[in-house]
Amino acid sequence: MSRFLNRQYESLEPYTPGEQPKTEGLIKLNTNENPYGPSPKVLEVLNQTEISKLMLYPDPEVSVLVQAIADYYQLETEQVMVGNGSDEILAFSFMAFQNENRDIYFPEPSYGFYKVYGDIFRAKCHPIPLKEDLSIDTKKYKNLQGTIIIANPGAPTGIALNLADIEDILKSNGSNLVIIDEAYIDFGAKSCVPFLQKYDNLLVVQTFSKSRSLAGARVGFAMGSRELISDLNRIKFSFNPYNLNRLSILAAAEAIKDDAYFQKTREAIIRTRQEIAEQMRALGFTVLPSSANFIFAKSDRLSGKEYFDGLRKRKILVRHFEKDPVSDFVRITIGKEDDMKELLNITRELLEAKDSKDLLERTEV
Amino acid sequence: MSRFLNRQYESLEPYTPGEQPKTEGLIKLNTNENPYGPSPKVLEVLNQTEISKLMLYPDPEVSVLVQAIADYYQLETEQVMVGNGSDEILAFSFMAFQNENRDIYFPEPSYGFYKVYGDIFRAKCHPIPLKEDLSIDTKKYKNLQGTIIIANPGAPTGIALNLADIEDILKSNGSNLVIIDEAYIDFGAKSCVPFLQKYDNLLVVQTFSKSRSLAGARVGFAMGSRELISDLNRIKFSFNPYNLNRLSILAAAEAIKDDAYFQKTREAIIRTRQEIAEQMRALGFTVLPSSANFIFAKSDRLSGKEYFDGLRKRKILVRHFEKDPVSDFVRITIGKEDDMKELLNITRELLEAKDSKDLLERTEV
Repeated sequence: MSRFLNRQYESLEPYTPGEQPKTEGLIKLNTNENPYGPSPKVLEVLNQTEISKLMLYPDPEVSVLVQAIADYYQLETEQVMVGNGSDEILAFSFMAFQNENRDIYFPEPSYGFYKVYGDIFRAKCHPIPLKEDLSIDTKKYKNLQGTIIIANPGAPTGIALNLADIEDILKSNGSNLVIIDEAYIDFGAKSCVPFLQKYDNLLVVQTFSKSRSLAGARVGFAMGSRELISDLNRIKFSFNPYNLNRLSILAAAEAIKDDAYFQKTREAIIRTRQEIAEQMRALGFTVLPSSANFIFAKSDRLSGKEYFDGLRKRKILVRHFEKDPVSDFVRITIGKEDDMKELLNITRELLEAKDSKDLLERTEV
Repeated sequence: MSRFLNRQYESLEPYTPGEQPKTEGLIKLNTNENPYGPSPKVLEVLNQTEISKLMLYPDPEVSVLVQAIADYYQLETEQVMVGNGSDEILAFSFMAFQNENRDIYFPEPSYGFYKVYGDIFRAKCHPIPLKEDLSIDTKKYKNLQGTIIIANPGAPTGIALNLADIEDILKSNGSNLVIIDEAYIDFGAKSCVPFLQKYDNLLVVQTFSKSRSLAGARVGFAMGSRELISDLNRIKFSFNPYNLNRLSILAAAEAIKDDAYFQKTREAIIRTRQEIAEQMRALGFTVLPSSANFIFAKSDRLSGKEYFDGLRKRKILVRHFEKDPVSDFVRITIGKEDDMKELLNITRELLEAKDSKDLLERTEV
């Protein structure tokens, strides 16, 4: 820490992103990337002509992409704002709407960044524990005194909320902003975008990183009332007006227009998810009902740490969160079928090794 | 404005970027883009294989690029931090180091964003007027009580500072952070990067947008002590860890390695700048001594607004700042030789038209 850093950040704990390994040959199921790669239309549009224009600034209004998103969701362009990943959108939202006098409520555990954003923008954080079954306790979000942020489907559980429950939260918090983080919405849950017609206290955040296979392009977006979007643009134009690079704008616009590819790949992921969940359950795992491109699973024989480490040694990377009540779970991204077969094979081996070890230990005693 | 926006932003005036026209056929000399386009190595590295990996997150440490910059400037990698354009680097710097108790000093006029950043991060701004000749009054930056930020070469003048003057400022402000914004450093001024060995209160900010022809890729970087860089990374990892997309990382790393192309193109720009400055002076313009990829010029016959409008009507876009003491100047980016010839031709026509109009008016009287 330098002697110039604001003292408010002294105790700040930054977010820890999932490992991005630099070695080859790992099966990477740890950061919920899409195994199917970007739409072929993305590969077409990012041609040498466009690359040779990189000396020109991008359009700071990101008009082409804002229009494509507005068309897709049947919104006005003034209701859409694009960011350098949905993390930037969330950061701008906390910057715009939070301060030391406005508290923030979110499920715990959830996306770890909500607390970090609360901390840097000096909002008092109120983590609300999940229910025993790790679903969100929606009753606890009624009539609060501050902003509410909820991931739907939930992170890291993958459990989807009912739209009716979200609507109840919106209704009973008329003077509060409610942010619904729909990063994983396209894998089986229902978006609350249609509520934008009725509720001006709703901000919906989505990303191109998961269902659109563009994590490497860094594109997220917010949808809300014209006023909320105008506020976010005021922050953007006071922070980083050219926040998207030229190629990401083009890539994302093509990706959202290619509905056929989108449908095909997300259906493949949903199908694989159902298969793997069933097979894991057959191996004695508890697998939460997922509407995301990952499953959250707990073995009846291996601790979360043991399972994570065992997979890591066998070159499969998944995500493990140390803290309770989820420390016995691991989060496994849905990859291609072959990768999931390998995961199952190694999981069986780990379980067998554990059983032999247990047997050995019992014999020794 | 929504009812949820922090009241502190009510009066905030966001930065106004230069126009990015959506119509074709304009000669664009308004945002200091490099006319020569990115290095051929950039076009090579952004191939279909790399584009097809866009479903993967980028490396949040941006190691490849940080290493390339460290190699270029002979620094440790811990002294380099990369951002989504130098605007993001500046925003993170103000966020990290400014607050309501630490004032900020900068030349006026200068890059308009310094005041905006001061405002959003609640630092009291002290604009220090330029001297009569529009150079920076370095004497006024001794022994101040707060952070200092200076663009070298100056914006929008293009006038370079002496390194000795910068060192005096660093020395006499041992307890203050001094940020030198070297966006235009490669067109003839001397970088103060070597001072990093001696002064831990120095932060140097540069960009790939100008001399490296990558404005569309959004890559900027900061160089400073390990402690300052670690502070900036703490902010980045609490705000937007994946701030650079995969393709921009690759593009920028290739661009900084291709020294031959860099030397060739910046020399071409310096040569064209010298020619155009001479020819403009011959037409009666005052042209400030520029070490940047633009000139700042004032006619003895046309007001800044008249000249800007005249050029705009004839499809040449330059930049005009309304405020004194520079409202009679326009800022003209150095383009390719043909574009500058066209600029000169149209400038001559505008001057002739003005002379005939004046003559006509005098005759009528």
